[in-house]
Amino acid sequence: MKHAYDVYAQACPTRVVLDRLADKWIVLILGLLGEQPMRFNQLRREIQGVSQKVLSQALKKLERDGLVHRQAFATVPVTVEYSITPLGRSLASTVSELARWAEANIESVIAAQQSYDAAELRRGES
Amino acid sequence: MKHAYDVYAQACPTRVVLDRLADKWIVLILGLLGEQPMRFNQLRREIQGVSQKVLSQALKKLERDGLVHRQAFATVPVTVEYSITPLGRSLASTVSELARWAEANIESVIAAQQSYDAAELRRGES
Repeated sequence: MKHAYDVYAQACPTRVVLDRLADKWIVLILGLLGEQPMRFNQLRREIQGVSQKVLSQALKKLERDGLVHRQAFATVPVTVEYSITPLGRSLASTVSELARWAEANIESVIAAQQSYDAAELRRGES
Repeated sequence: MKHAYDVYAQACPTRVVLDRLADKWIVLILGLLGEQPMRFNQLRREIQGVSQKVLSQALKKLERDGLVHRQAFATVPVTVEYSITPLGRSLASTVSELARWAEANIESVIAAQQSYDAAELRRGES
């Protein structure tokens, strides 16, 4: 192993962490909370298309992993605010880069897909 | 929208790309091919625990997205080598950082999980 922990080793616990990070909702949530704390409904509005259940599960996992802090305020009704922890912040810049990459390179990816599909079609016809 | 493309918008094609990146096998494959071209069996040996089917599907997706180049050599038996494309290279450093983060911070994550689970248990008992 190159490190004490090695993501390429099957039994290494880092695999579990990598699996967690490898989730588009996690990328989107950490990107937002890296900018400012937010309430549940704010997050849900910003991340278009996420269901209440999926967002709630993702936040619970992030809280359990120590990446997000959940704070309830004794208002009526109760207000719950989510903020990023220092550990979460150390990760947020990397995951945000993934989102930026997707936005910057989507046209190259679509062009590659079209060219691949056209070549597949030609192979199918010959 | 902040950009012409916005990963937070539900109908934006960047969501599809983000979903593709958000896959631990993709992270592990790009990390290896970013260092050097590899044959299928080499990749399979390095990425412990990946099945032949899953690796083969992941490589096909990466090839279709224009991130990985597949080259067959007319040896007996045929040798197939996978290498990273310039587009793939522009992504590889970011995804490798995710793997490095997981290796560097796994202990903090495990500690956070244990503390969360202990608190849940206390809440259940009270």
